[in-house]
Amino acid sequence: MNLKDYIASIQDFPKEGILFRDITPLLNDPKAYKQTVDTLAEFAKNAGAEVILGPESRGFMFGCPVAIEIGAGFVPVRKPGKLPRATISEKYDLEYGSNELQIHEDAIKPGQKVVIVDDLLATGGTVAATIKMVERLGGEVVGCAFVIELADLNGKELLKDYNVFTLLQY
Amino acid sequence: MNLKDYIASIQDFPKEGILFRDITPLLNDPKAYKQTVDTLAEFAKNAGAEVILGPESRGFMFGCPVAIEIGAGFVPVRKPGKLPRATISEKYDLEYGSNELQIHEDAIKPGQKVVIVDDLLATGGTVAATIKMVERLGGEVVGCAFVIELADLNGKELLKDYNVFTLLQY
Repeated sequence: MNLKDYIASIQDFPKEGILFRDITPLLNDPKAYKQTVDTLAEFAKNAGAEVILGPESRGFMFGCPVAIEIGAGFVPVRKPGKLPRATISEKYDLEYGSNELQIHEDAIKPGQKVVIVDDLLATGGTVAATIKMVERLGGEVVGCAFVIELADLNGKELLKDYNVFTLLQY
Repeated sequence: MNLKDYIASIQDFPKEGILFRDITPLLNDPKAYKQTVDTLAEFAKNAGAEVILGPESRGFMFGCPVAIEIGAGFVPVRKPGKLPRATISEKYDLEYGSNELQIHEDAIKPGQKVVIVDDLLATGGTVAATIKMVERLGGEVVGCAFVIELADLNGKELLKDYNVFTLLQY
């Protein structure tokens, strides 16, 4: 099974000049989705993950089943105004625009081993902001796992001090 | 294990007069999260689900692992502007405000058996709009499963023609 057959490529979405990699055909195919989750879960388990973090909202689509599969907890990384209790925040730049992310300040316990799961590694801004929040709370980022890597954007260089896994490279 | 011990109740969030039920402590506890997903998955499997739909974005946190667990595909139900290919839309009212939801028009095949999974059944507006989209595409809604039911808001009455499961009632 070639998982790239389940990624649609959409020109000029969400704005001109962006070639968007659409993971919805992969989600819609039970075997392709399961194989993707199994592979990310194996990486997370081998990395020693005790908790999985996933950025809003495509990170939930992979991070949540990975957490269930390896028996870890899940922490949602969200945009401002979505989490109801006390949070910490980091601002970041992303492939198209800029944004701010938050996690609950009680989401990570000191010393906890964390794997961050997201659909896409582009410039790495989202995951770098997420790593900063984990480390501010005393957690240890033992891995970062992505379904898709846009290799030209050099996200791996930004994350060179971390254990990074990407499933499909473009 | 009493799963209600893992639901935080936040007064006046996201606005005054709303008592928000926060599922993040449940997500953060591997046993509570797994038990929740297992129970929803058993319902979905017994209902004959071939595909799971989950509304943005807390619906992803439960719908995605349920899909993986029962070997179904997953279809994200999203707010406007998020899905890159041709979509169908429904407008709806929700507990606080109003909104519009979309799915890709190729997401459901005619005759396909669908279970909708979300974190919360309040007035039922979100799920009613989702049901309309499934039925417009020729799918059959064989069940709707929720982690939390706000019984005073009578969502079950709106969904009385459907097979509805709720795990925790408030």
